[in-house]
Amino acid sequence: MAESTVSTAPASPATGAWSESDIQRLLSGPARAATGWSGAPPAGKPIIPFTAGVPDAPTFPVAEIGAAVRTVLERNAVPALEYLLGTPGGVESLRRLVVDRMEPEPGLTLTDANVTITSGSAQAFANVAQTLLEPGDTIIVEAPTYGGAVRTVRGSGGRFESVAMDEGGMRMDVLADTLERLDREGRRPKLIYTIPTFHNPAGATMPLERRRQLIEIARRHRVLIVEDDAYGELRFTGQPIPSVFALAGGEGVLRLGTISKTIAPGLRVGWIKGPAVIIDALIRMRFDNGTSPLAQYTVQAYVEAGAYEPHIEQMRAVYRSKHEAMDAGLGEHCSRYCTWAEPAGGFFLWLKLPDGVDCTGLLPIALDEGVGYFAGQSFFTDGSGQDYIRLAYSAVTHDQIREGCARLGRALALATA
Amino acid sequence: MAESTVSTAPASPATGAWSESDIQRLLSGPARAATGWSGAPPAGKPIIPFTAGVPDAPTFPVAEIGAAVRTVLERNAVPALEYLLGTPGGVESLRRLVVDRMEPEPGLTLTDANVTITSGSAQAFANVAQTLLEPGDTIIVEAPTYGGAVRTVRGSGGRFESVAMDEGGMRMDVLADTLERLDREGRRPKLIYTIPTFHNPAGATMPLERRRQLIEIARRHRVLIVEDDAYGELRFTGQPIPSVFALAGGEGVLRLGTISKTIAPGLRVGWIKGPAVIIDALIRMRFDNGTSPLAQYTVQAYVEAGAYEPHIEQMRAVYRSKHEAMDAGLGEHCSRYCTWAEPAGGFFLWLKLPDGVDCTGLLPIALDEGVGYFAGQSFFTDGSGQDYIRLAYSAVTHDQIREGCARLGRALALATA
Repeated sequence: MAESTVSTAPASPATGAWSESDIQRLLSGPARAATGWSGAPPAGKPIIPFTAGVPDAPTFPVAEIGAAVRTVLERNAVPALEYLLGTPGGVESLRRLVVDRMEPEPGLTLTDANVTITSGSAQAFANVAQTLLEPGDTIIVEAPTYGGAVRTVRGSGGRFESVAMDEGGMRMDVLADTLERLDREGRRPKLIYTIPTFHNPAGATMPLERRRQLIEIARRHRVLIVEDDAYGELRFTGQPIPSVFALAGGEGVLRLGTISKTIAPGLRVGWIKGPAVIIDALIRMRFDNGTSPLAQYTVQAYVEAGAYEPHIEQMRAVYRSKHEAMDAGLGEHCSRYCTWAEPAGGFFLWLKLPDGVDCTGLLPIALDEGVGYFAGQSFFTDGSGQDYIRLAYSAVTHDQIREGCARLGRALALATA
Repeated sequence: MAESTVSTAPASPATGAWSESDIQRLLSGPARAATGWSGAPPAGKPIIPFTAGVPDAPTFPVAEIGAAVRTVLERNAVPALEYLLGTPGGVESLRRLVVDRMEPEPGLTLTDANVTITSGSAQAFANVAQTLLEPGDTIIVEAPTYGGAVRTVRGSGGRFESVAMDEGGMRMDVLADTLERLDREGRRPKLIYTIPTFHNPAGATMPLERRRQLIEIARRHRVLIVEDDAYGELRFTGQPIPSVFALAGGEGVLRLGTISKTIAPGLRVGWIKGPAVIIDALIRMRFDNGTSPLAQYTVQAYVEAGAYEPHIEQMRAVYRSKHEAMDAGLGEHCSRYCTWAEPAGGFFLWLKLPDGVDCTGLLPIALDEGVGYFAGQSFFTDGSGQDYIRLAYSAVTHDQIREGCARLGRALALATA
C-alpha cells in the first residue's frame, strides 16, 4: 500500500464504519512498507520448481521425530507442555547440546549462557534485528544477499549498504572502503550480515584468511558480525572451515544456526550463539514466551537417540548428488548461455545470464516452458541483479532436475534467438 | 543497564578486544531498557507459588496430544515438517477450525482471511505491537494490566496511558476523558489494550453494555481495540458474554486467542482474529517464517479427534474448584485484612491489602512464611499498585491453596502487628 494512498484518502466520518484508510493510518511505517513472503509456489500451470530453498521432503526423518516426541511425552511431558518457566532463553539441556555436540566451536569453551534457542534462524535474525536496529540504522549486507534477511531489516526500518562479492564471498577491499566512507559520513553501521558458508544465493564460501580479515575490519570499526550459517553442515566436498565466530574467539560475532536444513523446518528450532551479554539482551527482547519447549525437547531427544549425525551424513549425500545432477544438466543444456560457480555445499546454483537477457524478461518464457526460478533482483537491496537467477536443487527430484535444465535451456535459446 | 553507563564508559582501543560498553553502544534503545521475563520460580527456600499464571500441569492431555502428533506424522508428515509454504498466516485448515469451531463469533461470518495463527497469544500481541506501534506512539491500557503486554509495548518504544478499572473492567468515563485529553494534546493513540473477560490480574469481566460503550468510544476516536482473551473459555460461573470483537461486527477490533490455557502452553499456538486488511498487515510483519506447522497440525488433529471441548469442560471444573478453595482459604485466614472480588473465571484473585501494608514490604514476610505472590506494581505502568497483590490458584494443588492461604494470613498478621 503506497503511503500517498493513505495520506490522500478521505477520512470516513468519525461516527461511521471503519474505512481502509482509517486502518492504514494506524499501521507503522515499516508495516505499511512491508512486502509479503516469497517462497509460495507459483500459481497456474505445473512447473518444475527450482524456486524454493527448502529441504528434500521425502528424506524427512519422520519415524525418528515421532520416536523423539514419544520419548519426550513419556519422560518430560510437563516441562515440554508447560511455559518455559525460568529459562526464557531456551531449554538448558538443549542449549548445552548445541554448544557441546550439535555445533561445537573448535578452540572455544562455551556454556548455555552463550546460546539462545529461537524459532528457526529466521526468528534468530529477527531477534537480532529487533535488539540492535533502530529506524535509520545501517546494516551492511552482501550483494547478493538472502531476501528473508532484507525483509526483516526493512521491518525494523534499517538502511542497507551493500558490499560486492566474488568467488570468495564478501570482498574485503569493498567492505573496508565502505566502512571508511560511512565513518566520514558520520554513519556508524550496527551489523555486518554475512553468509560465509555456501552462500544463499551465490553459493560462495569465504576462505579462512578472508574470514580473519573480516573479523579484523569489523573489530576495528566496532561493528558486530552476524554469521548466518543455515547450510554449513551440508558440505559435499572439501574440508570444513572454522566459523567466523570461532575464529573471532566468540567476540563481536553472532552465529545463527538451525535444524531446518538438517532435520526439518516444521519444528521451528534454531539458535544464536554469541557473547553472553548480547545473548542476554536478545533474550530480553523476546516477547513470545520463547520457542516451543515441546519442539526443543523433541530435538534434544532426537539428537540423544543418535539420529542427528547419521541423518546429516545422509543429507550430504542427497544434496551432493542433486548438485551433481543439476551441474550436469546445466552443462548439457545451458552452458552455451550461462556461467555459474561450483558451490561446495548448500542448496543453490547462481547463474549469470548472457548479455541481453534479463531475469525478469526470461521468467515468462521459462514458466511457459515449465520451469521456475527466483529472479536475481530479489537478492539485491537496490533492484540490481537482473543478470542473475537462482536455482535451488534441494527440493526437486533427479528427474525434475534433468528435465528442468532442458526446459531452462530451451527458454534461454528462445530468449537469445 | 543504564544509558548513562553506556555514554560515559570509555571506548576500548579500536584494535583491542570488545568491551561491554562497545556492545551496549550497539543495542537499540528498547533493548537497553528491556527487562527480563517474570514467571521464574523464586530461588531459595521452597515456597507455595501463588505466583505464576500457568495452567494445571497434572491435567495436561498428554496422551491425546501424543495421539494427535501420531495422526499428523501418519497423514500430514510433509506439510507438518516442511516450511509453511504459501500460507504464512498459518495452516488454512486450522484457521478455519478456529473461526468455525474453536472460537466462533455469534452473528459473524469469518473466513481464514480473518485469522492468523501465532506462536501463542504472547507472540500475537508482539506481532500487533510491531505492526502498529512506532517509537513514541501511545497505547491505552487498563490499570492494572498484564505485565507481559507492558514489556512488549516497551520493546516497541511505545508510551502508556492508563485507564482505571472498577468491578466491571475499564472505566468508560475515564477512557472517554483520556481520549479527549489526548486529542487536545495532539496525541492520537494507536491501540486500546483490554482484557475484558476474567482480567489478568484483576479478575473483572466487562458487562455487555460497557463493551458496547467501549466499541463506540474507540470508533469515534478511530483507535483500534485489542481484546486479549486468553482465559475466556475458562468460565466457571454465569453466562458467556459476546466478545468485543463480535459486538463490533468484527470491525476495529483484534481478538487474541490461545490454546495455552485450554490445551497446553508448550505447543505455542495462538491466533489473532480481525479485519482481513489488518490480518494481512500482521502476516507481512512476521519475520520468523510462521508458527510451527507441526504444532498447528497437532492442534487441528487434537480438536478433530473430539478432545478439545470435553477437555475444556474438565478444565472449567478444575479451576472452579481451585477458585472455590482459594476463596474459602482467604475467607478463613485473610478476610480480616484484605478484600477481593469474585471472578467468574480465569486463574487469579486480586487482593487489596490493608492500609499501611504495601506489597513490597509484605513480600519478604510472606516468603519467610513460605508463600509467594506477584506484587501489585508489576501490573501498573507507573509504579503504583503497592496496595495490591495477585494470587494465582491455577497451578497449585488444593493442599497448597489451603496451606498457602494460612501462611499468607500469618504474614498479614505479622505485617499489621
